[in-house]
Amino acid sequence: MGRWEPDARGRLERAALELYLERGFEQVTVAEIAGRAGLTERTFFRHFADKREVLFWGQGALRDIFVDTVAAASASTSPIDAVAEALAAAGAIFHERREHARRRQAVIDANAGLQERELIKLASLAASLAGALRRRGVPEPAASLTAEAGIAVFKVAFVRWVSDPGEPDLPELIRESLDELKGALITGVLANAPTTLNG
Amino acid sequence: MGRWEPDARGRLERAALELYLERGFEQVTVAEIAGRAGLTERTFFRHFADKREVLFWGQGALRDIFVDTVAAASASTSPIDAVAEALAAAGAIFHERREHARRRQAVIDANAGLQERELIKLASLAASLAGALRRRGVPEPAASLTAEAGIAVFKVAFVRWVSDPGEPDLPELIRESLDELKGALITGVLANAPTTLNG
Repeated sequence: MGRWEPDARGRLERAALELYLERGFEQVTVAEIAGRAGLTERTFFRHFADKREVLFWGQGALRDIFVDTVAAASASTSPIDAVAEALAAAGAIFHERREHARRRQAVIDANAGLQERELIKLASLAASLAGALRRRGVPEPAASLTAEAGIAVFKVAFVRWVSDPGEPDLPELIRESLDELKGALITGVLANAPTTLNG
Repeated sequence: MGRWEPDARGRLERAALELYLERGFEQVTVAEIAGRAGLTERTFFRHFADKREVLFWGQGALRDIFVDTVAAASASTSPIDAVAEALAAAGAIFHERREHARRRQAVIDANAGLQERELIKLASLAASLAGALRRRGVPEPAASLTAEAGIAVFKVAFVRWVSDPGEPDLPELIRESLDELKGALITGVLANAPTTLNG
């Protein structure tokens, strides 16, 4: 092992994003990222498996927060409220990372392969969330539907958050987006079948 | 151009699915598909750009049905009801194609690259659906949220439909799944904020 480098991970991440934005993800090598960060390639590979993982290492942390928050919700919490708690908890970890998230999104938006990887990440998170709901006793298809709707809310809120610095913080946007989705679906219910709500 | 071959497209599609299931998608060549169908490679390439398109050519038809149905919905139709009509119309085209869809799904489930392609298809359909809603005057983020929720419903209903021959037909499963999602989201609303509905 090499000597300890202060904040090596953060320095590598910032250097990688800078280079990806300057020259495009495909064109950048690990050697260049390490060089820009003032570190060695060996140090890079102690922190990341490859240059794509610099953009996606957070997936495991997000999944853990989703799954743990749903598992920890009180027994009386409805499935959608457990998902709302999980989304807000996940949203909170992006605090202070807005500029980083905006730059990361710009890198992904410029590369079709990275966009595919991001879709796979979201699908995988939806599957993990559905699994956490099933372990609470939520049957299918309600578990998958609630999880997919939750991830859709997260995705839409995240895009709003990174696109416009004037928007509120992410947990607030997630709450707003979930309320918006409920409103959009309930409009149909109220128009078509008010007895569902009153009966 | 070669001579006209009766149902060449259908024969190629059936031959391709048979071979993909027997030997795995990666191992099969276009020459083998054409041979199994009793046709030439040249005929294959008049119908499909490559062997992957045999599995994904329906995406354009689905997109057109989604977009056209949303555009044709009456002015008084709510966004979620316009999406529900679009999903049901799309579901109807799979009538008589259940065994085909089941076989196609088995091919996709066995190949990570095809699963990614399927996710991209669904994300693209959600974007088209959101665009159709915006053209009806639905603002963001409601348009994207309603579209994403609609595609989530379609995805979950489709999996139920291909997985269990005992399940009802696809348009019926789509309606059931949408009602299930509304119920799951409204449970939270009724528990937390009844004034939203009564006020």
